Amino acid sequence: MVKMKIFPRFNDTDALGHINNASFASWFEEARRPLFEVFIPDLDPKKWNLIIAKIEIEYLAQTNFGQEVEIKTWLEKVGNSSMTVIQEAWQGGEHVAKGKSIMVHFDYDKQTSRPIPADIKDTLNKKFSAV
Amino acid sequence: MVKMKIFPRFNDTDALGHINNASFASWFEEARRPLFEVFIPDLDPKKWNLIIAKIEIEYLAQTNFGQEVEIKTWLEKVGNSSMTVIQEAWQGGEHVAKGKSIMVHFDYDKQTSRPIPADIKDTLNKKFSAV
Amino acid sequence: MVKMKIFPRFNDTDALGHINNASFASWFEEARRPLFEVFIPDLDPKKWNLIIAKIEIEYLAQTNFGQEVEIKTWLEKVGNSSMTVIQEAWQGGEHVAKGKSIMVHFDYDKQTSRPIPADIKDTLNKKFSAV
Amino acid sequence: MVKMKIFPRFNDTDALGHINNASFASWFEEARRPLFEVFIPDLDPKKWNLIIAKIEIEYLAQTNFGQEVEIKTWLEKVGNSSMTVIQEAWQGGEHVAKGKSIMVHFDYDKQTSRPIPADIKDTLNKKFSAV
Repeated sequence: MVKMKIFPRFNDTDALGHINNASFASWFEEARRPLFEVFIPDLDPKKWNLIIAKIEIEYLAQTNFGQEVEIKTWLEKVGNSSMTVIQEAWQGGEHVAKGKSIMVHFDYDKQTSRPIPADIKDTLNKKFSAV
Repeated sequence: MVKMKIFPRFNDTDALGHINNASFASWFEEARRPLFEVFIPDLDPKKWNLIIAKIEIEYLAQTNFGQEVEIKTWLEKVGNSSMTVIQEAWQGGEHVAKGKSIMVHFDYDKQTSRPIPADIKDTLNKKFSAV
Repeated sequence: MVKMKIFPRFNDTDALGHINNASFASWFEEARRPLFEVFIPDLDPKKWNLIIAKIEIEYLAQTNFGQEVEIKTWLEKVGNSSMTVIQEAWQGGEHVAKGKSIMVHFDYDKQTSRPIPADIKDTLNKKFSAV
Repeated sequence: MVKMKIFPRFNDTDALGHINNASFASWFEEARRPLFEVFIPDLDPKKWNLIIAKIEIEYLAQTNFGQEVEIKTWLEKVGNSSMTVIQEAWQGGEHVAKGKSIMVHFDYDKQTSRPIPADIKDTLNKKFSAV
């Protein structure tokens, strides 16, 4: 499991006074950065080899500006060419949102998925285990 | 079903050259505006009475800047106090993304859900039927 | 002068109940799209040949969700390799913001500015005159 | 002077492969947070007493994903009811952008500016001096 702290930006909020639902999609993407680094160590977009197939976000509580959010990220499953990522957002001891996303190892030139190499699988399983 | 056209903003794209996954959360929210208007006719945030409980987005194809996107929105189900919204995004004849979201009729002062009034249900069922 | 209508997205607002200042940078960029099309007719990011050097935005009134915004865009000056773009945002008959930006005709491979061709200058001067 | 580190989010980039110009407006707002805290110690949006009158941003270099950005913030001038904020963004030892913004001490109920109290001025002058 990897933990990351995110401080809400003022424009992550909306006119209802709390964090807008779409900001969680950005935060969860930001919190998947350590996972991206396993695939693309220098994070160079020209070498990108992951594509997102699906996201799910459940909103459990209204989230506020002015207080740090901790995001926990781990892998539920590493398949042949895809992964299921689980994420939780916590603020002030409260579980405010949970997310699930499916990422695919992808060749942008050929526009096809490709198997995840064994050494990357090993790193993923170690670094992003559920506990 | 309600259809809305959205023109991607340049900063909806990301360094991979296509629309970023989080922008779809914003686009689908924007395309739910006619649904919000059934509940809050003048769209005044101070009168807001809806809260989002969950979103799901599936990414079916890479989406481009420079070309209009059409979003179709309808209701799969209207329950006692919540609704399941289905959305599809199309660009240039291609089905690029689909979304599902759960919206709850909500009292922000009391912080509780509340039943959807019968007349609103009628309007929803007419305006947001699947066909 | 070119006019474009923009409908605020819900997440263009912030917790103060109005449009966040940063959203105007996105809106003004979106309203420069017809200008981008003079340089890159198909708006393909791979062919992009403009870079932004400076923006200025003055906020004249609080801007609301739920009401269309009209943006007027014209050129104050077309120089050898750069242009000064003036923009105004209006909502419900009120002038809510004004913007100025400097765009440079740019070669991304060589990382240098380059002269604006005469035919493009002609089109700009016709389409983006102050009146 | 106050320094803050910001890690670019993936959707701060755009299809040209670098950080989008509008993201700097958000980053500079985020980096003004310590300044907001002088006026609103708990950062509660309901108690907000600042409004933005103007921003200027100059783009000095293309800014990348995958590398931390440091933002330096200080006050050029503290007037009767307004302040001029200067900001610089640095990435990997390079000065990538500079910003200037005018913030006004504001009464949202009365919709008028109001003088900055003497004790707040003192704190501002100490914490946000140019050096």
